[in-house]
Amino acid sequence: MNAMTKTDWIAVDWGTTRLRAFAMTQAGDVLARGQSDKGMGGLSTAEFEPALMAIIAPWLSAGDITQVVACGMVGARQGWIEAPYHAAPCTPIDCDMTTAPSNDPRIKVSIVSGVSQLGPPDVMRGEETQIAGFLALNPDFDGVICLPGTHTKWVRISAGEIVSFVTFMTGELFALLSEKSVLRHTVGADGWDEDAFQEALSDAISKPQHVSARLFSLRATSLLGDMPAPTARAKLSGALIGIELAGSRAYWLGQDIAVIGAAGLSNIYAEALKAQGATPILGAAQDMTLAGLCAAYDNMKVTS
Amino acid sequence: MNAMTKTDWIAVDWGTTRLRAFAMTQAGDVLARGQSDKGMGGLSTAEFEPALMAIIAPWLSAGDITQVVACGMVGARQGWIEAPYHAAPCTPIDCDMTTAPSNDPRIKVSIVSGVSQLGPPDVMRGEETQIAGFLALNPDFDGVICLPGTHTKWVRISAGEIVSFVTFMTGELFALLSEKSVLRHTVGADGWDEDAFQEALSDAISKPQHVSARLFSLRATSLLGDMPAPTARAKLSGALIGIELAGSRAYWLGQDIAVIGAAGLSNIYAEALKAQGATPILGAAQDMTLAGLCAAYDNMKVTS
Repeated sequence: MNAMTKTDWIAVDWGTTRLRAFAMTQAGDVLARGQSDKGMGGLSTAEFEPALMAIIAPWLSAGDITQVVACGMVGARQGWIEAPYHAAPCTPIDCDMTTAPSNDPRIKVSIVSGVSQLGPPDVMRGEETQIAGFLALNPDFDGVICLPGTHTKWVRISAGEIVSFVTFMTGELFALLSEKSVLRHTVGADGWDEDAFQEALSDAISKPQHVSARLFSLRATSLLGDMPAPTARAKLSGALIGIELAGSRAYWLGQDIAVIGAAGLSNIYAEALKAQGATPILGAAQDMTLAGLCAAYDNMKVTS
Repeated sequence: MNAMTKTDWIAVDWGTTRLRAFAMTQAGDVLARGQSDKGMGGLSTAEFEPALMAIIAPWLSAGDITQVVACGMVGARQGWIEAPYHAAPCTPIDCDMTTAPSNDPRIKVSIVSGVSQLGPPDVMRGEETQIAGFLALNPDFDGVICLPGTHTKWVRISAGEIVSFVTFMTGELFALLSEKSVLRHTVGADGWDEDAFQEALSDAISKPQHVSARLFSLRATSLLGDMPAPTARAKLSGALIGIELAGSRAYWLGQDIAVIGAAGLSNIYAEALKAQGATPILGAAQDMTLAGLCAAYDNMKVTS
C-alpha cells in the first residue's frame, strides 16, 4: 500500500470457510487486500474481532474510526452477530445494517442483512451483496441471476429488486457424493469429460426422477467394466446440475440470464444453459462481492 | 446349544458393518447364533478368517470339515475373496460358489455370487440371497421385490428368476444429508411426523425435479420460523423416497409387491406404497437372508 494514501473504509467478504478484507478509498479503489482461513464456520463469537484485526490492523490510524462493511455468513446465527433477513421482494441491500460488538476503538463494523422469502421458505446471506454489485454495474438488468456454489441460487430480478428466489443443494450434494459416499471410489478429484457431462445433463433434465438410480449406476459401471474417473465426475455433475435445471426451468426459460460464481463452476453452468438454448452472461463472484460492498458503503453515506 | 446336537453346517450373513453367523442342522434349524461388528468394511484380507473363527470355533469338531455358506459384501472386491456376479436374467442363487482361502482344516467357506445387469449397469451382493429366501418361502411369487436400505433395490421377479433390477442411493443420501450436510442442524436423529412424510412424498412423486430445492427449503423453514426436528426428518425421508418411487414407477405400478428389509424402514416404504394405491406384503431381511442361505446350502447338496 502507498504509505501516503489513507484507508477510507474496509470491505470484508466473510464466508463459512474464508475471510477476505480490502482497504478501500472513497472512490472504490483497492489499496490493499488480505485474507485468511478464519471463516465463520471455525470461529466462536469472541474470535471474530481478533481474526479481523489480524488482517486489517496495519490499515488503521490511531484516533480515527474506520468503517468496516462486511457481508456473508459473518452475519449468520452462528456468526459474529446475527443480521436480520429482509423479506423479498426487496432491493438486494438497503441502509439497514447490523453493528457487530467490537472492542477496538478504531473500527465500526457493519454487517449487511440477508434476504428471506416466506413462500416457499428460502434464505440467502452473501449472495445479496453479489447481486447488488452486479446491479450497480448493470443497473438496467431484468431477468434471472444464477449464483452457483455449495447452495446454488436462482434469483428473479426486476426493476432493481429481488422478486423471488430458490436454492438448490447441488454443490453440497456433489461434494458429499464425490467425497463421502460409495461413489468416492468411482469419481475422480479432478478431470472432466464434456460429452459425458452433456449426456448426463440432458438425461437428468428430461428424466429427473431417475437421478438417484443414475448415481448408483456410476458405481456399477465402474465395478463391471471401466469408466475413467473424470468421466464419472462429469456424469455426477451433469446429473445433479440437470435435475437443478429441470427444477429451475420456470426461472430461466426465456429470460436474460447472468451467472455469477467462481470461474470454473460458472463455465460449467454456462455450458449447461447453452445446451438448453440460453445465452448467459458471466460475472466473477469476488468482483461482484466487492462491487456490492462498495454499493453498500455508498448507500450508508447517502443515508447517514 | 444342545451339546448332543451336532452343527451340520454354518450360515454367515457378512455385510459391510456386521458379521452374523448361525450354527445350523441339515433340516435348517438354528442351533446357535453369534455376531460381531467385524463387517467387511473394516477388515483386511487376512482378518476375515480370524473374525469368523472368533464366533464359530465353538461349533466345530476336530477331524470334521464343516461347510460354511456366506453371503454379502464378504464377496466384494475389497472382501475376503471376490465372488463373481451372475448376469441377470438368472436365478438369484445357483450352485456356482466361490471358495475363500482358509487355514483352519475344520472349515470350507463358500461365498454366494452376486448378480449384475449390463444395461443399465447395476449390481447386487447380498440381496440375491434375501430374494432366494423369499422365493423359497413363496415359490409362485411373480412381481417386484423392493429391498430398502443404504442402496435400495427394486427387482422384477418372474418364474423364479431375477429379470431386471435398479438401485437407488436413497438410504445413503438420507444418511449423508441428515448427518453431514447443512440439514444436520434441522433434521432430528429420531422422531417422525407421518403427515409431513406423506406431504413431502406426494410432492416429490409428482414433481421430482424440485427435490433438491425442497431439501434446502427445510433448512430455510427452520431458520425463518419453527419446524420440529421430527417433522424435518419425515419431510427429508418423504422427499427422497418420493423421487425414488417416481423413478421406480415402471417397476411397481400394477405389480404384486414384496418389501424385504429392516422392520422400521420397510414400514415406511409400505406406507408410501399404500398411499400410491399399492398393497405390499412385508418380509424381514434377516429371516429372508437365513432362508436364502439354507436354499444355497440345499442347492450345494443337490449338485455336489
